[in-house]
Amino acid sequence: MKILGIDPGLRVCGYAVIEKKLLDVKLLEAGVFRINADNTLAARLSQIAADIQTVLEKYRPDMVAVEQLYAHYKHPRTAILMGHARGVILQKSDEAEADVKEYAATRIKKSLTGNGRATKNQMQRAIQSVLSLAEPPEPADVADAIAIALCCANER
Amino acid sequence: MKILGIDPGLRVCGYAVIEKKLLDVKLLEAGVFRINADNTLAARLSQIAADIQTVLEKYRPDMVAVEQLYAHYKHPRTAILMGHARGVILQKSDEAEADVKEYAATRIKKSLTGNGRATKNQMQRAIQSVLSLAEPPEPADVADAIAIALCCANER
Repeated sequence: MKILGIDPGLRVCGYAVIEKKLLDVKLLEAGVFRINADNTLAARLSQIAADIQTVLEKYRPDMVAVEQLYAHYKHPRTAILMGHARGVILQKSDEAEADVKEYAATRIKKSLTGNGRATKNQMQRAIQSVLSLAEPPEPADVADAIAIALCCANER
Repeated sequence: MKILGIDPGLRVCGYAVIEKKLLDVKLLEAGVFRINADNTLAARLSQIAADIQTVLEKYRPDMVAVEQLYAHYKHPRTAILMGHARGVILQKSDEAEADVKEYAATRIKKSLTGNGRATKNQMQRAIQSVLSLAEPPEPADVADAIAIALCCANER
């Protein structure tokens, strides 16, 4: 089973593709899409759509996992703009016939470390350990995308 | 010049296609997409994408006009969800090579009635008059979409 985890954003989108076979979990690819911030909002969304489609076509994931929306946001306008990117990602995932799964931030943390309030550092070490990576995953957007994908794998 | 005005939503999307030739403005089509609220968010976004694409392909508008985001929202979560629909609409419009234009609500009202605080009723009568419609446009989502398209036409 292949799972694509995504950390949506209008400047940087983190993504990670993992494969789960029985108890074995392997990282196939992870990285970020960097979006040209000089472009119009519509053009940035088109870039995100094209980037995500490339990954969807390359790996044909069974599931796409994203973080659940919060009930409250400190910066609603930023959250609404992020919603635009998230909307494009969910739509493309549905079009690619992937099953879209959403997980609360605390659930993702708990799933990887046993602690719903784990620090970024604890999360990175958990990811490094599960996937036997030589280095902790960087930048934060990639680590978040991997964590979301691993949480989804754990829940299956 | 053809302009597609859209009032985005996850339950109902209003849309209106107008054509402007010199001083003449004609309504080509207006209506609503009704989204199946029982579906998942991703599936609803796919339905919006398919519906908007049908209109984009039918009319090939030069411009797509939407209302600008507010700085503040009473219901951030609803606004974030609306952002998902708006994101899909902007992305599809960009893909169809339409120029995306955003207008503040007050500017749309002022453009049609001369008053940035016009009531819904005043807006409907202004639309009815400009387009020589037999009846005021209904429902509100359609009226809003027409108003946005007419504002865009006025600004050219």
